Amino acid sequence: MPDYPLMKLRVVLGPDTMLGPGKADLLQGIDETGSIAAAGRRMGMSYKRAWYLIDTMNAYFQEPVVVSSKGGAKGGGASLTDTGKAVLDCYRQIQRKADSAAQDDLRTLAALAKPGPKNDEA
Amino acid sequence: MPDYPLMKLRVVLGPDTMLGPGKADLLQGIDETGSIAAAGRRMGMSYKRAWYLIDTMNAYFQEPVVVSSKGGAKGGGASLTDTGKAVLDCYRQIQRKADSAAQDDLRTLAALAKPGPKNDEA
Repeated sequence: MPDYPLMKLRVVLGPDTMLGPGKADLLQGIDETGSIAAAGRRMGMSYKRAWYLIDTMNAYFQEPVVVSSKGGAKGGGASLTDTGKAVLDCYRQIQRKADSAAQDDLRTLAALAKPGPKNDEA
Repeated sequence: MPDYPLMKLRVVLGPDTMLGPGKADLLQGIDETGSIAAAGRRMGMSYKRAWYLIDTMNAYFQEPVVVSSKGGAKGGGASLTDTGKAVLDCYRQIQRKADSAAQDDLRTLAALAKPGPKNDEA
């Protein structure tokens, strides 16, 4: 269960050029699994949708963020390019710094909310 | 035209309890216009949708965020409660502090992107 309150960030680089938690998690999944299918699967995302998001990101940046190879002994694979690694790293830094800067106000906001479902039986 | 890169923040207070730019702008619109209809209209949002978002927010917090009065000489109106003002203020503080903390990484990320449409003819 996530630890509330939390923030989700969407970076808008231009009209129709957005990078949010879904795309960032997909990049991280590819980095960790070496596979677009596996990265999508662990997010409950179809292979087609995962490829669509990667194509979209590859078009955003001056260099592609993901490269993939077909076939071969291990059935191909995918990995992040240097640009892909830099994009993911920037996004995570933004998230970390924003979380940290906003912590006090997030708690103040959460204190105004109705209490959530009790977790004390967990 | 917005000033890219920018960040959009969604604060998640619990499961199905989210506060993002749309709800914040609606609160601000009500504060500035004294009217749910006018606040929705300037966002291109139907009255029904605006009310739905307000009902949703009123249910999130321990006190309602908006109160409205019907009829009367001026045809009724709406205003933020103290809780509504505090919620909007917190959200704006979070946005401001997050923007400021993430500024350098946002610029680094934007520098990796393809250049946007040229604006030098504007």
